[in-house]
Parts: sequence; structure tokens; C-alpha cells
Amino acid sequence: MGGKTDMDRRSFLRTSALGGSAAAATALAAPAYAQGKRTLTMVSTWGRGLAGVHDSAQYCADRITEMTDGQLTVELKAAGELVGAFEVFDAVSAGQADMYHGVDYYFLGQHPALSFFSQVPFGMTFQEYNNWYYHGGGMDLADQLYGIFGLKSFAAGSTGPQSGGWFNKEINGPEDFQGLKFRMPGQGGQVLGKLGASVQNIPGAEVYQALSSGAIDGTEWIGPWADEKAGFQEITKFYYTAGFHEPGPILSLTTNLDVFESLTPGQKAVVEETGKASSMWTMALFMANNAAALQRLQAGGVKVLEFSDSIWDAFGAAAKEVVEAPMGDDLYKECYDSYMASMAASAGWISRSEGTYSAQRNRVLGG
Amino acid sequence: MGGKTDMDRRSFLRTSALGGSAAAATALAAPAYAQGKRTLTMVSTWGRGLAGVHDSAQYCADRITEMTDGQLTVELKAAGELVGAFEVFDAVSAGQADMYHGVDYYFLGQHPALSFFSQVPFGMTFQEYNNWYYHGGGMDLADQLYGIFGLKSFAAGSTGPQSGGWFNKEINGPEDFQGLKFRMPGQGGQVLGKLGASVQNIPGAEVYQALSSGAIDGTEWIGPWADEKAGFQEITKFYYTAGFHEPGPILSLTTNLDVFESLTPGQKAVVEETGKASSMWTMALFMANNAAALQRLQAGGVKVLEFSDSIWDAFGAAAKEVVEAPMGDDLYKECYDSYMASMAASAGWISRSEGTYSAQRNRVLGG
Repeated sequence: MGGKTDMDRRSFLRTSALGGSAAAATALAAPAYAQGKRTLTMVSTWGRGLAGVHDSAQYCADRITEMTDGQLTVELKAAGELVGAFEVFDAVSAGQADMYHGVDYYFLGQHPALSFFSQVPFGMTFQEYNNWYYHGGGMDLADQLYGIFGLKSFAAGSTGPQSGGWFNKEINGPEDFQGLKFRMPGQGGQVLGKLGASVQNIPGAEVYQALSSGAIDGTEWIGPWADEKAGFQEITKFYYTAGFHEPGPILSLTTNLDVFESLTPGQKAVVEETGKASSMWTMALFMANNAAALQRLQAGGVKVLEFSDSIWDAFGAAAKEVVEAPMGDDLYKECYDSYMASMAASAGWISRSEGTYSAQRNRVLGG
Repeated sequence: MGGKTDMDRRSFLRTSALGGSAAAATALAAPAYAQGKRTLTMVSTWGRGLAGVHDSAQYCADRITEMTDGQLTVELKAAGELVGAFEVFDAVSAGQADMYHGVDYYFLGQHPALSFFSQVPFGMTFQEYNNWYYHGGGMDLADQLYGIFGLKSFAAGSTGPQSGGWFNKEINGPEDFQGLKFRMPGQGGQVLGKLGASVQNIPGAEVYQALSSGAIDGTEWIGPWADEKAGFQEITKFYYTAGFHEPGPILSLTTNLDVFESLTPGQKAVVEETGKASSMWTMALFMANNAAALQRLQAGGVKVLEFSDSIWDAFGAAAKEVVEAPMGDDLYKECYDSYMASMAASAGWISRSEGTYSAQRNRVLGG
């Protein structure tokens, strides 16, 4: 199913076909403009109300509707309302919905290279990703990859660097992951698996219940603000901030390719620029709210911790194995080479410019 | 002068008024849709071809035109083509042009609080600004400030953290700024003035000539990529990377308020979201190109340096004086309080999340 034809338009055409007067002739031409008036269905990997991520999906739906002055009306169906969180990729690929908003490491079973367009463990931060995606060849590779599935995808948000997660004990060394039942999706989860964890991939809307019931010992979710809203502090008290697994996860706004091609040039541009605008808005939403949330969590008795260097070393070694495992796939390897070269260049400059500045400013102002 | 009526539309109306046939009646209705078809003039603080910044202005003009399917056509006039770089604020305020793209620290004479919406020395990075602007009250304060001048402004780009600049000698201590004829605009320039420099505010398009002629001893411009294109390495060889003065300068897309209010809701949304999209695209453009450019500069004999802690301390002390000087103005103080509180919160979280991650990743991957 592509874009639904607007019912008003069809009934209007029937009405105008009845008349022959000058007034009717004037009315007749109006549908030439209204011809493209469509309702598009957006499905999503997010439960309704999930802080930040559902907001990002809603932002995309609303902005497309607004910017087209209603020529396109995007109706957002949260996870489970039309299809389940993990079904959106296939549903849009098959044309059962027009577009989805989500995070594509849920779909590594469809293609492992989707990790580069969602998150690689030990990979790019948000800014590094933007450098690559918009100006380093990333978008062209995305077009190749999503094109395989009849999709057209645009980056459309980030949660910012995700926290290491919630644990029912302190993690003092890599050996403490042995046997831990932990929720972590994507390649990050595979990394923890190499450290001996029993890793589970559970949609966001179901994580609280799994943690609460003891089905899992711990979970990562997003960061202080979204984690607090999810309520994990009610169950566990050990919270690790910086994590290795999602330093700059990318949310996508992905459209059925036939639907996308059926849009006017202006509507195509609206969808594309909505992705950029939502990226900016969503990233800032999370980052703006995390500091205050972390303070509230600490005040509520949560113990805020950082992983030791030895744990980071173990993460790094396992991440290298996981990220290099699918290199037999040509497109994966092409994405890998492009991504890694761009990340190295970006990291060097960011460290030298913003890194040096921030360190000096924080030193001078803090002193 | 507000938005110009499109000539094609008027000639089309004249033509259609001549006919009375069914074909003419059909044509008659088309202008009901085309009624809002307008050409808007965008002036700019950037010379045509200035790397990155003129590209950002062009990006905004093109995206607005594209997203409205030509209902709005934005014509970009570079600095000097309609008005000079430093005249765009007044020209758009007075309605002589419809909008401008530029950086608003050029206009601190109109209002000192414009620094918060362009750059405060020792102030916010790009991400910190977005946190404040979109989710921390910044946009509301911008509306108050720009509203005084009959303007509606949106953040629309950043060059990323700017380099300390080009010098004709090594800068070994704060005393080396004494008597130095240096180009630096905005409050940053006032800071160098406190260190004894003779500071000049020169539009970008004229800096090369000033440096080449010896009218100035040194200059900051943007960063390796844009600086290389400007050619400063042909004249001076001492290049300081991280600087205190523009850690995340914000470019603005600013519209005459009456013109903005005359747009349809969809067109207003297009202008606003174009600002966000351009911010994302422009920031990434600079950041993606800087690493390779710095390598080329070094290969060409440029000596790449960093300021010492004692210089950063002197920058910090002088910046505090400069930034606090206009506090007698109520709106300035309101912006200052909001900006500084947001910056402190953002800085803490960014350091704890992205800062810790990047340091660990770079350590592990580099080792």
C-alpha cells in the first residue's frame, strides 16, 4: 500500500463533474492543485510516549504535514498500533506502510551494514556521523544499502551518547559480565555476548517489565532523561554513564522507495530536510535534559559510576571482532572502509579543536 | 519593500483575463494556488564564493525554493551585490531586502545581546548552543531581541570551533598581543583589545588584502579548510588551531518580520526547518573538511601551534570582563543568565558522556 488517496478529493471530483456552470468550471481546476493531497502512514519502532524517541517520530510527522501546508498529512502509528516495533522495516519495504521512524540496528538480520547507519560499537559520535553522512560519502552508501530493500532512508535524529546502563551490582572488571542477563540491541549486544553476557534484544516498550520481573539482570536504554522516564531507577541502583555501544546512535526516517519517488520534487525535499531538522532538534532534546535528570537520579539514591580502563579495553577488543565479522559482504566492507577513514579524520580534528577548547574553557571557568 | 510579486504571475493573470472559453476557465483557477508565488531577496554578509559560509547561504536559498515547489523563490545576493556585508541587518530591518544570511556579532552596535545568538568568547560549542536554543529558552529570547528590530531570526549554520588564527610570529605569552594589529570581530576582538592588540573588524572578503598589504599583522578567519581557501598560508606561517573566541559561532537566517508574517503556515515552517537543516549541513561541511586541510597546510610549511595555559588564562579573564560589561541592559542580562546556566549544565553532561567516550575510544583505538 502506497500513499492513500484523500477521500475528500475523490468526493470533490464527483461533485464537480456534475456541474457545467462558470462556478463549477472554476471549482474544476482546484483539484489540479489538490491532486497530490495524500495521507501517508508512518509506523515506528517506539511505543507511544517513549521519551524523546517517540517525540522525534512525532516531530517528523508534524513537520512534513506543516511544511506541505497539508498536501501531505503524515499519520504516526506507534509500535504495536499497526505493526510491531521489529516489523516496521519489512512493512515499509513491502509497502504495507509508507514510512517508518526508528533505529536500524534492530534490523541487522536484514543486512549487517545497517549498523553503519544506526550504530557501530566504538564508532562515531553524532557529529562524526554527520560529517561522514552528509559530506563523506555516507548518504550514497545508504542509498545503495536501503535501495536493496526498496527503501529511501534519511538520518532523522540521535539520542546522543548513550549511557552504559543499569546493573544490579557494580561492574569492576570485564569478568563481571559473565552470565549477566542484559538487554542491549545491535552489535553492542554481540560485544557483551563475547564477554559472556546472555544478551537479549527487547523493544523499548517492554524493557521495564523484563527488568522488573527479573527476566533480565540489567539493561541499557538511552541516557539519564529517558531512562528516568522509563523508571529503571525504581528497580536497579547502579548506573554507568558513558558506554561503548552507542556513542551517537542514528534514528532514521525511512520511506518506501516507490512512495518517495511518487512525491513532487518539493515534497521529496521536505522529507529530506525534515530528517536533518529532526536530527538537530532530537539530539538537542536529549542533551538538554540529561544533566538535570542525572542530578535527580543521584538525589534519589542512584549510584553513578564509570567503567574502568580495563573494561574499556575489553569492550574495544570484543568490538573489533564483532564489527569486522561481516567483512565478507562487499557492501559491508565498502561501508566499513569509508566509515572508519572518515571517523579517524573527524576524531583528530574534533579532539584538536572542540576538545582542546572545551578542556581549556572548563579548566579556566572551573578554576 | 516586502516580498516581490512574481512577474510571471502578473503576466499570467493578464493573459487569463482575456479568454472566456472552458480552457481559459481552467487556467483562471490556477492562480488561486499561485497567488502566494513570490520571489524573496536574501542578502548576505558573505562574499560570493567564500568557502562554507556562502555555501550555507546558498543552501538556505535553494532549500526554501525547492521545498515550496517554487512558491517561494529565494534569490541570494552576496555581500556587495545589493548591500554591503555590514549593512544587511539594517537593510532587512528596514524592509529593503526580505531576509539575510550572516553572523550577528557584526551587529553588536545595534544590540550587544546579539552576541548570545552568534558567539560569546569562552561561550558555547555548537551542541551546547542547540541545547539552549531549541530546548533551553534560547529561541524565546531570540524572538524578543530580534523583534525589537522587526526581524524574525533562526539559527542556520555553524562553522564549528574556529581556529585561533594566523600570526606573523609565535605567541608565547599574553604580552605578545601588545600592539598586534589583528582582525577579530565581535566580543572576541574586544578581548584581544584588553590584551593590548589593535583590533580591526574587517568583512571576510577583504581580509586577505588587509593581511597581504600589512594593514594587519594577523587574522583569525574560520578553520583549516576555509582558511586554506582564503589563502592566508601564502602570507603568514604561524597557525594556532583551538581559539577562545568562536568555539561554536552561529550563523543566522533572519527575515523581515512583516515578510515572515505574510507567509503561509507551511512557508513559515519551511523557513524555520531550513534553518535547522542548514545548521546540521553547514556544521558538518566545515568539520568534514578541516582534517585534510590541516594536513595540507602542514605539508606546505605552516607551523601548527596551540596557545599555552597562561594565554588561555589571560583570554578567560579578559573575556569575563567583556562579556559582563553590557549587563546594565535588562535583556542582555536575561540572555546572559539563561545562556550561562544552560552552558554549565550542558558542559557537565557532554564532558561526562561524549567526552569520556571519545577519550576512551581514542585511547583504545590509538593504543
